[in-house]
This record gives sequence, structure tokens and C-alpha cells, in this order.
Amino acid sequence: MPRWKPDTRQRLVMAALQLFAEKGYDATTVSEVAERAGLTRSTFHRHFGDKRDVLTAGQETLSRLLSEGIAAAPADATPMTALAAGLEHASAGMTAFNREVGPLMHAAIEANDELRRRSTAKRAGLAAAITEALTRRGTSLATAQVAAELGVLAFHLGFSRWTDPSRDENPGELAPLALAALDELHAAARRLR
Amino acid sequence: MPRWKPDTRQRLVMAALQLFAEKGYDATTVSEVAERAGLTRSTFHRHFGDKRDVLTAGQETLSRLLSEGIAAAPADATPMTALAAGLEHASAGMTAFNREVGPLMHAAIEANDELRRRSTAKRAGLAAAITEALTRRGTSLATAQVAAELGVLAFHLGFSRWTDPSRDENPGELAPLALAALDELHAAARRLR
Repeated sequence: MPRWKPDTRQRLVMAALQLFAEKGYDATTVSEVAERAGLTRSTFHRHFGDKRDVLTAGQETLSRLLSEGIAAAPADATPMTALAAGLEHASAGMTAFNREVGPLMHAAIEANDELRRRSTAKRAGLAAAITEALTRRGTSLATAQVAAELGVLAFHLGFSRWTDPSRDENPGELAPLALAALDELHAAARRLR
Repeated sequence: MPRWKPDTRQRLVMAALQLFAEKGYDATTVSEVAERAGLTRSTFHRHFGDKRDVLTAGQETLSRLLSEGIAAAPADATPMTALAAGLEHASAGMTAFNREVGPLMHAAIEANDELRRRSTAKRAGLAAAITEALTRRGTSLATAQVAAELGVLAFHLGFSRWTDPSRDENPGELAPLALAALDELHAAARRLR
């Protein structure tokens, strides 16, 4: 029984991920996904171009949220403080639905080479979005690139801790976990030698 | 007139890249690549699975060279010193041929979404290879991941300076450029706040 109240889009994502887990990504059709969700094929296509998009659509939102949060940080914020603001804003956009589907999505991506490549590309897209948002604030390119890589690693580390099924049933919010991960990685970067 | 003496594989790569630039990646066939190189289709397939492999095959070599260099660093080397050894070893494996085809390869990849995804995935593969090589030496995962991202950025920054057509005709070796880029990024990481 899901803890979130799924909307149409979320029902389609959950149905797709269940089918990917049961019969594999390649063998799953859009019609089956729609049927499992109790919806029509055309409803599916109002939300997604094809079944691949089910797995990566959320990451465009994530890029946007990260950029927005960085842009909204005070003008005198350091790059790391602005990055933390971006992580906090993006984390606030992640819901119980994201937490439910995280492990299923991860499993589907890991099981398929084409999806792994798409997912990795989206991850690089996140780094590019952070780099751009930081350089727009006047951060130098080298600093922005290094900060961006820390930000992407921190988000994924925080997210994997948040969605870890072995953790507490009530894991709280993602933001403190992502920010703690950023602190760890930042400390590692300063200590690098 | 190329400055390197191309072997069969290099002739195929150069022919493919020229055709990609002239008529686009999608419109280029393996037969045309073989013909342009003065070789047969079956020779092509002794070297590459398909035309996509022309563009990413070199990056597997690069991962291997980076890992080898890191593994061969003295046992008491710091993570950054081991990483520098990896970059130096990998740079030494890059020849005048790599320098010639670098910009053509970059242009072909940038012009095609599918190739961009593959290239990004390979880049992430480099980071994973560095992370693994460093953790095998006892470096903590967070430190290894941060170092790996610096290493990938440094290699690409050094490589783009090495292959920049506006630079000197005799650009020297890649290694000093990659190591200088690593120093810059390392300094940026330590100064991050």
C-alpha cells in the first residue's frame, strides 16, 4: 500500500517500474504499462514520449530545482553556500513518491545498458546545470566544476541514504541527508593531498 | 597531410570522422567508411563492432591506462600523487594521432545526441575506474570519488588545451598540460568555501 496518493503520472511511473522489475525493461510495452495503471495508451503518451522517459523525466525537474536554489542564494553567498541552497531547494522538491520509487528506478536502470547510459548522461546534465548556475553568480569555471561534481555526488549519496530500505520507516526529509553528504565530500576535498 | 603514420585502425577512425563531418553520423555507413579508408567492410568489423564504437573505443584504453598508473604509484603516495601518476601514465599513451583526431571526434560527438550520451557515459566510466583504482589502494570512498572527478576534469581540460588548434603547432606532450590542470582543480577544491 503506497504511502503517497498517486496522481496519473505517478501511477504510470509505478506501473512501469513494477513491470520492468517483473519482466524486464525490454519486454515491457507501453500498452502494458497503461493497462497496469488502469489508464489508456494515449494517456501514457500525454505524459511521456516513450517508456525510456519514465526513468529519466524526473531528472529534468531536479536540474531546474538545483539551478533555481543556487540562483536564489544571497548575492554574497560563497559557492558552497549557494550549492547547499540548491541542494536544499531540490531536496524539498523530492516527495514520498520519489522515496518509494527510488530503489525500483535504480534497479531498472542498473539492469539495462541503454538505461544506464541515459541515466549517466542525465547525471552529467545535473553537473552541467550546477556549473552554469554557479558561473552565472560569478564563480570561476574551475571552482564551479569542482563544486558541481561535489553537488552531484552529495545529492546521490543523500538520496541513496534516504531511500535505503534498511533505514528507519520514517526517514524524515532528504535535505539534511544531502547537506550532510555535501559536508562530508567538501571536507574530503579540502583534505585531498 | 597527417603527421602520424596511420595503422589500419587509425585509418578507419580518420575515414569515419571525416565522413561524419561531411555528411553526418547517421547518414554514414560502415561500407563508406571502409571504402574511404581503402579497406574492406570485414576489415572494419575486425576492429569495431559498429560505427558507434569508432568514437568511444579509445576511452576503454584510457580507463585502463589511468588505473594502471594509479596502481603503479608508490605505496606511500597520497591519493592526489597516485592520481597524478595515473594521469601521467595515461597521457603518455596519447599519441599524435589522438591529438589529430581529438577535435574531429569532439565535433562528431557534439552533433549527435546518442553519441553525446555514449561519450558522457564513458566519461563517467573513467571516474568509476579512477575511484576503483584509488579505493584499491586504501583511499576512502568519499576521497576517491572527489579525486576521481578532479582527475576526469583535469584530463579533459588538459586534452582540450593540447588539441586546441589555436595553440602552437608543436604543442609538446599532453602530460604537463594534464598535470597543470590537475593542480589548478586541486587548488580550487582546497579553496572551496
